[in-house]
Parts: sequence; C-alpha cells; structure tokens
Amino acid sequence: MLESGLLSRRKLLAASALTAAAGAMPRDSFAEAPAAKKQGPGVYRSKIGSYEVTALYDGIWYLPIDEKFVGNASSRAVDKALAAAFLPPRILPVSFTALMVNTGAKLILIDTGTAGQITDSAGFMLGNLAAAGVEPKQVDMIVISHFHPDHIDGIKTKDGAKVFPNAQILVPEPEWTFWMDDGNMSRAKQPVLRYFRNARRIFTDIAGEVRRFTPGEEVAPGITSIAAYGHTPGHTAFAIASGGQSMLAMSDTAREPFLFVKHPQWQPSYDMDGPMAAATRERMLDRAAADRMLVEAYHFPFPASGHIAKTKTGYELEPVLWQPL
Amino acid sequence: MLESGLLSRRKLLAASALTAAAGAMPRDSFAEAPAAKKQGPGVYRSKIGSYEVTALYDGIWYLPIDEKFVGNASSRAVDKALAAAFLPPRILPVSFTALMVNTGAKLILIDTGTAGQITDSAGFMLGNLAAAGVEPKQVDMIVISHFHPDHIDGIKTKDGAKVFPNAQILVPEPEWTFWMDDGNMSRAKQPVLRYFRNARRIFTDIAGEVRRFTPGEEVAPGITSIAAYGHTPGHTAFAIASGGQSMLAMSDTAREPFLFVKHPQWQPSYDMDGPMAAATRERMLDRAAADRMLVEAYHFPFPASGHIAKTKTGYELEPVLWQPL
Repeated sequence: MLESGLLSRRKLLAASALTAAAGAMPRDSFAEAPAAKKQGPGVYRSKIGSYEVTALYDGIWYLPIDEKFVGNASSRAVDKALAAAFLPPRILPVSFTALMVNTGAKLILIDTGTAGQITDSAGFMLGNLAAAGVEPKQVDMIVISHFHPDHIDGIKTKDGAKVFPNAQILVPEPEWTFWMDDGNMSRAKQPVLRYFRNARRIFTDIAGEVRRFTPGEEVAPGITSIAAYGHTPGHTAFAIASGGQSMLAMSDTAREPFLFVKHPQWQPSYDMDGPMAAATRERMLDRAAADRMLVEAYHFPFPASGHIAKTKTGYELEPVLWQPL
Repeated sequence: MLESGLLSRRKLLAASALTAAAGAMPRDSFAEAPAAKKQGPGVYRSKIGSYEVTALYDGIWYLPIDEKFVGNASSRAVDKALAAAFLPPRILPVSFTALMVNTGAKLILIDTGTAGQITDSAGFMLGNLAAAGVEPKQVDMIVISHFHPDHIDGIKTKDGAKVFPNAQILVPEPEWTFWMDDGNMSRAKQPVLRYFRNARRIFTDIAGEVRRFTPGEEVAPGITSIAAYGHTPGHTAFAIASGGQSMLAMSDTAREPFLFVKHPQWQPSYDMDGPMAAATRERMLDRAAADRMLVEAYHFPFPASGHIAKTKTGYELEPVLWQPL
C-alpha cells in the first residue's frame, strides 16, 4: 500500500501545482493566518555540573567561496563535502553562536557575535540574549578567543558604544601582542589589514580596561584557557568544568563540521598558519573523540555542541540531542 | 604548544576540583547570577514555498528499554548504537515534536504533543506554541497521523476539555476503524489495551466532529496524506508542498534516527506489525534519500528535520542546518 501512497517529490509538486491551478481545495471561512516571518529564538541551555551554559545564536553568513578556499583540497572535493551535507556548492554557511556561562556567581560570555556588522543574516545574539532573560548590563565578563571581527565586533556598537557596559574584558596575551603591533599591521594585506584596523577600533580606547591572559591560565572559576594556535597567532579554546562534568569550547579550532571535522587536514584560507591550525585541529579532535568530551564550537550549526566520533578518514560531529534542562 | 595546553578531561576535572577546594579564584564583588533553570524555547521555522512550517518541541521521554525492545537485534547491538550516538545504555530518549503548517490561509497542526500526560519531561508544546506567537484558539485544523497516545493526547486536557477549541480534527479512516472497534479492543492486551481506552477518551464524545480521510487524499491545500502502515494499522505520513518545495513528514515511519534510520530493518516492539513497518520504513527512507527530500519526523531530535543519506548498512539523518528564516 505504500507503493501507491508514497509519492516522488516530482509527483508531489505536480499534484500541488494542479490543486493550486484548479482551486480544488476549499479555502472556506477561516481568516488569514499571519506568517511569523522570522526564526524562533536560538537559545539552548546545557547543565555542566552546577553551571548553566547557554548557546546564543547570532545568525549565519552565506560566504561565497572560490577555488582557492581550501589550499590543499580541490574545489570539487569541497563541493562534494557540501553536497554530502545537503548544501549548495560554492557557498559556505558560516554559523555564529556565542556561549554564555553562568557559574552561579558570574555571567561570562565567550566571544560576542557579529553585532550585525558582518552580514544582514547575522546579528541576532542580543535578541537571543533577551530571549534568554538576560540584559547586556548583567554580563560580568567577556572572554575573547581571538581577534577576528566575528568574535569581537559584539563588544561595541557601530558607533563605538560598549554593548556590555559592566563586563570585564579578557583577551589572550599573544593575540593582543600580534594584532596591536603596528609593525605587523604595516606588513598586512587585505583582508587581514582590515582585521588589524578593526581590532584597533574595538580595543584602543578601552585598552586600559582589558585584561590579558596567558593561554593555559584559568580565566574564571572553572574556565581554563587552552592555547590552540594556528587559526590566528594567539587563538585560544576554553574548557568549562564544574562538578565532574565538562565542555570543551573549541572556538575556531574546528569550524564548519561538514568540511573541517570531516577533513581536519584541510587548510582553509582563513587559517592564518594552515599547517599549524590543521595540526592543532587534528590533536584537539583526536583528544575530544578519545575522551568522548562534550564539545562546542563557535561555527558549529546551532546549538553548536555535540560529540566527536573518529571515522576512517577524519571525524564526525554527533550534534547534541535537544533535551529539557 | 597545544600539547602543554590541551588538558585531558581527567586533568581538567582535577584542576577544577583543586581550584574549588582552595578557593583560588576571586569570587569578588559580583552579585549572584540567577540560573534560568529551564530550556530555551523549542520553536524552529522552515519556509516551504509560501508556507511557513514550525517545529514545536514538546519534550522527551527517557524510556527504559529491555532486552526484547528490538525483536530482531540483540540488546548489545542496541546499546552499541546508543553509545555511537553518545547516549547511555538501556534508555531510549524519545523526543516529541509537533509540526504546525501555516498555509497563509490556515494554521494546521500535525499531531498534538503529549499534553504532559505521558512524562514530566514532556508537555512543553503549548508553551512553545505561545513562544511562536500562536494561541490554541487560532489553530484551524488538527491532522492526526495515528492514535498512539503521544500523538493524540494534546487534543484534550486531562479533564476532557478541548485544547484547540476551533480546530477541525482529521484522522486516517483505517486508524479510526481499527482503534474504535470494540471487537479489536476485546482482544487487546496491555499496553495496547490502554491505547484503545485512550482513543475512546479522546474521540468518543467528539466523534461527530471528526473527519476521517483515506490515506492518499489531500487533507488540506498542499498537504497530502500517505499510507505508511505497519507502525499501527492506519499509520499515515504527510507530504507538504508549496511553490516547488516540499517536506516529507514521516510521522513514526522512522523514529529515533540513531537506532531506526541507521538500522531500518530493526523491528522495535512499538511497531504493531514489525515486518510491515520495517518494509514501509525502508521504502520511505530509500525514496527520501534518492530524491534528497527534506524530511521531518515526530520523534527525530528537535528541530526534527533534515535529509537522509544512504550508507552501506542503512541510512543517516543529516540534521537541518539551523538558519534564519
């Protein structure tokens, strides 16, 4: 009976078109149903021991990619990996999800979203923070993984006002040293030159308030920074631990999972030191898989967390199963 | 540098315990950060042509399973599949997600959630409907896939009041015929006997208002019912099509993907006709994979949609990539 009942997609669409043309279905007396025209809130909470960790969705950037996007893989191989994830070719969907940790004593934000300064299809983080019941002034601390614009732009509005007026800002020392150095900037080309200028826009006038930490340090109770250099010179990941449970926030160590978790050895153009970033990625994924760690990453599809399974050729992200808290 | 920085889970937890014991981190002057203590809203929208389709999360049931849960697979094989999805053994996390279709003219609900009548960790559908900006009285139509309690309980409160007072109710004719037949009930054993009684609790006093459809019929503009018998005698799936796009709502044809999409031939005890359900499942997954259809299923982890990829031994669900609308 299924044979007759199960329609192919083509037949389904044809049937639907016929119905619409013939006006076959009654549209009777019901009032029009107004469309919502926007996505539901992107707020997902996990409990890590006594800590409450909240993923806050900022949006997505549909980034056109060219043949040189992955230096050591063909554009055909990249398109094939996109197709395997049911995504169109030559466009990289870059998700953004910031992470808020409530330790019970402090509200700590790891990276800040794009503040709508990168693409119109992102910049929803503050709306989702509100949906999570938190006002920006309640955030006590911002911990930054690295100085790429999509991670630091949320610190300030376009007009230069602080978005989180009461938050202490912590940044990796080697990241500060690299990006705030005028000699390094003088040697930079686009798009990296733009990142140097953006780092100055965000940090110069608040430099005295920014606390620099050395990766490896505990930056807040239960939040340990981890050197994960390569993506940028001071790129940093974080481990969040409480009451016998933990989450590894990988930052940009592994970005889009359908490309770089599956193929950790691939070197995308946005990794500043490709071989170092790939080695870091491989080591962290290997450890995450071996220890069956709960992991999170800023560019994983929302809710941006899950577990890593080793495969014959690389790794797979098994997304977290959405559960009540 | 990663070697020294990347801590194992064991080391992380040990470090965290030491810190807590020593009170090493300043807990300074910040006020306490109140925990939210509940999950974020479970509302996810997709655009199918001009239709807006909203997944409404109802919750999860942590169902203890015994050695006989899958008739044709060992409990060791089932536990292994759970472990591959990073889930504990002997517990089946049964997700519930209802689907609302806004055709622009009508608000149509496919299945209704558990209304908190099955487990305390489910029953959030009405709260998520509110988060989606819809009141129960605005729902124009309820289309039921089959008469298992977790799909129909949301029609009524425990006290017997209608939850969606203005909704026309549509049910599959063969499902009605089977479950409302007193002879069938007289031959039933638990837990199926309970399902017979529950179907009467929900439907008897509103029987005159219930419209029965024959699977294969278009039940609303662009929503075509599909016979998918086996899970129950009249179990029905639905295809939603608008403007050249479509979504296949599989209902319970394939339930928990980490077990029954990966191993479609496995016959769980909740399929009333195991071999027929497995054949239906295999055919529908095969068609979904071949046509690269967007699929949805009531028990897939929220947001309960994605695509099906064929593997050597079965299929994989590639969850939908969370995007703005």
